Amino acid sequence: MSEVVTKASLAKETTGILASLTTGQKNEALLIMAAALRREASAIIAANLEDLERGRLAGTPESMLDRLALDVSRIDAISEGLQQIAVLPDPIGDTLETIERPNGLSIEKIRVPLGVIGIIYEARPNVTVDAAGLCLKTGNAVVLRGGSSALSSNRKIVEVLHNALAETAIPAAALQLIEDPNRSSVDEMLKLNGLLDVIIPRGGSSLIQNVVLNATVPVIETGAGICHTYLDAGSDPEMAERISLNAKAQRPSVCNSMETLLVHRDYAAEHMLSLAEAFRRVNVELRGCPETIALIPWAVPVTAEDYATEYNDYILNIRIVGGLDEALRHIAEFSTKHSECIVTENAEHAARFLQEVDAAAVYHNASTRFTDGFEFGFGAEIGISTQKLHARGPMGLPALTSCKYKIRGNGQIRG
Amino acid sequence: MSEVVTKASLAKETTGILASLTTGQKNEALLIMAAALRREASAIIAANLEDLERGRLAGTPESMLDRLALDVSRIDAISEGLQQIAVLPDPIGDTLETIERPNGLSIEKIRVPLGVIGIIYEARPNVTVDAAGLCLKTGNAVVLRGGSSALSSNRKIVEVLHNALAETAIPAAALQLIEDPNRSSVDEMLKLNGLLDVIIPRGGSSLIQNVVLNATVPVIETGAGICHTYLDAGSDPEMAERISLNAKAQRPSVCNSMETLLVHRDYAAEHMLSLAEAFRRVNVELRGCPETIALIPWAVPVTAEDYATEYNDYILNIRIVGGLDEALRHIAEFSTKHSECIVTENAEHAARFLQEVDAAAVYHNASTRFTDGFEFGFGAEIGISTQKLHARGPMGLPALTSCKYKIRGNGQIRG
Repeated sequence: MSEVVTKASLAKETTGILASLTTGQKNEALLIMAAALRREASAIIAANLEDLERGRLAGTPESMLDRLALDVSRIDAISEGLQQIAVLPDPIGDTLETIERPNGLSIEKIRVPLGVIGIIYEARPNVTVDAAGLCLKTGNAVVLRGGSSALSSNRKIVEVLHNALAETAIPAAALQLIEDPNRSSVDEMLKLNGLLDVIIPRGGSSLIQNVVLNATVPVIETGAGICHTYLDAGSDPEMAERISLNAKAQRPSVCNSMETLLVHRDYAAEHMLSLAEAFRRVNVELRGCPETIALIPWAVPVTAEDYATEYNDYILNIRIVGGLDEALRHIAEFSTKHSECIVTENAEHAARFLQEVDAAAVYHNASTRFTDGFEFGFGAEIGISTQKLHARGPMGLPALTSCKYKIRGNGQIRG
Repeated sequence: MSEVVTKASLAKETTGILASLTTGQKNEALLIMAAALRREASAIIAANLEDLERGRLAGTPESMLDRLALDVSRIDAISEGLQQIAVLPDPIGDTLETIERPNGLSIEKIRVPLGVIGIIYEARPNVTVDAAGLCLKTGNAVVLRGGSSALSSNRKIVEVLHNALAETAIPAAALQLIEDPNRSSVDEMLKLNGLLDVIIPRGGSSLIQNVVLNATVPVIETGAGICHTYLDAGSDPEMAERISLNAKAQRPSVCNSMETLLVHRDYAAEHMLSLAEAFRRVNVELRGCPETIALIPWAVPVTAEDYATEYNDYILNIRIVGGLDEALRHIAEFSTKHSECIVTENAEHAARFLQEVDAAAVYHNASTRFTDGFEFGFGAEIGISTQKLHARGPMGLPALTSCKYKIRGNGQIRG
């Protein structure tokens, strides 16, 4: 048996025990895991240095090395993440619905774990701990496949967590790390129906598309965000500028940041230049439609391909539109259905936008940057679903659960 | 553009209108569709005769021709199904959650349609109407691909429904039938990400497996049922026999019927022979483990392959077990996680079985045949999900919905 099948099988064998654990047992385990990470920080940092050195020799860009790097304060933050998961309410065992049938059958719908969750991600060792914590809190076993350039770090982290779990009610085998660095181990996970109940990809769009297009195991698609903000005629210019700047430039590398600004022609005539200057002050490159370029001398021409690109960078497309309908059509064409915003003082336009835009999160007068499990008050986030099945938008703990029906009778048969 | 892409695109264009329809508009349309089917019954029956004749010439078995055949009373029943969907509560627009954040953001989670649903099914013209009614009631567009041997019937039914829709607020293009009888049209639907939001296969296990293994569009897996009943020591023999016979023989062709009976050794010693005689009276062939064969002279030996087979027929596997743990192990190994039952007077055993068996529906002292949307009181059923994502067990109208977050602010930005 391959490493993937062996480890997924071991994980699956623990699902019965995991589903029956009390909330207290799971929370205690999370705290023991958190303490172990802090205690073993220097060993983890030593392993991380191996990854960083290998990365430097391979010419990995600094920005990627930064995501990979661990130090004491980062390990503290990761450890605190586990403590935060421990205090969240446990959804498992909740009764979602009770149905009493005329024939006397009593039907109870209760929340149960999904089973075994596969997580495929990049070279970010924090995801190793975060995903493990979220899955175990919800009674799921987890098979992790992180980027191979973080392998030393992940191996050490999982070793520390396995040792910690040995002191808890959670079987260590519930947490599995695939160490095979070859792409074939990912391919194998994608087809592991019967052993994995779901795969959640976390990372850039090529990683996610590979999973979506090749998995036969059910997938929760996360992350891709081509987000728009529409500035309506008569918007409050101070609010419009504040929201636009925040949506684009507060953290351009994330999925809920804005890629394209749609501006009503009347608003543009009066405010486009000052808005463009504000973007210039924070070093955002502007790509505009012909009308935009006529108003902003330093903007370069935008292409249809630009409209369909998630830059995750200090680049913004600007298009001037004739009104709400044109804005809605642009969004329907280019949106990845992640987060979309209208800035307007017109209540009817706001209502239409919130109703008609098909996206996980639709905003009136607030930055798209709020699409986030913590900002929504979920206390944790396994990712942001951009599909419509199972979960949509920021996914908290309930997104990692399924349900089952318990039916109690006294001899009923079907007539 | 191929027929599939053309029709799916037309369907997708209607999703905005569909999502905004009132419940009254949708219900009125369903009633107009129902009336049209009754009015055009003779034309539909004439088209159905073409399918039946083609089927007879091709040597199609009688049982399949029976599923395909329509007459006035069947069309009446199909039409009544639409009327029943019309009176069900409309889940669209329901507020599922409201969150007020400390920063003043008001977050509302509301139910919305999935978008465009693809249904792939066999030669059962009733599914054409049923699936159309359920999808339209929930504001979804639908692309139907039925078995090619029902093509004349489906074409006429959809023509009747299109004419009916022309009098309603629902655009006729929201209902699309793929007429290309080649397998390639199914393959094309499976990869139609961006145009189809979900595919629901309805039919036998080879149809379902083809969809699950080849679709890149998200799938809701339905139907496969290797269901078990475990007769515990000390069961009420009258109840045990009644439930076992019902689970196997009331309608063996359906997914919630029993394939394997697990019997406690003590119960078997006393009651196996009379139970076996009861099965013989209703013509159920028995395949048994060696201990079973020692008790039932006419039983034939069961194989491991038999335990893994969904017969959908008058055949039953019987295995004698030493107790609850052995029964649970057998179920964990062979169950398709559809419906599982324990017959017992022991409350602790019942509780353990309901907790530990991983299946959509777990029963204590009632027949597995109750796993059904109508029997659960949902008033409709699009299928029975045997996966854990999105929906599990019988799927009523809410299983055909997604959600979105509407967020209202007054200028909030992220710090």
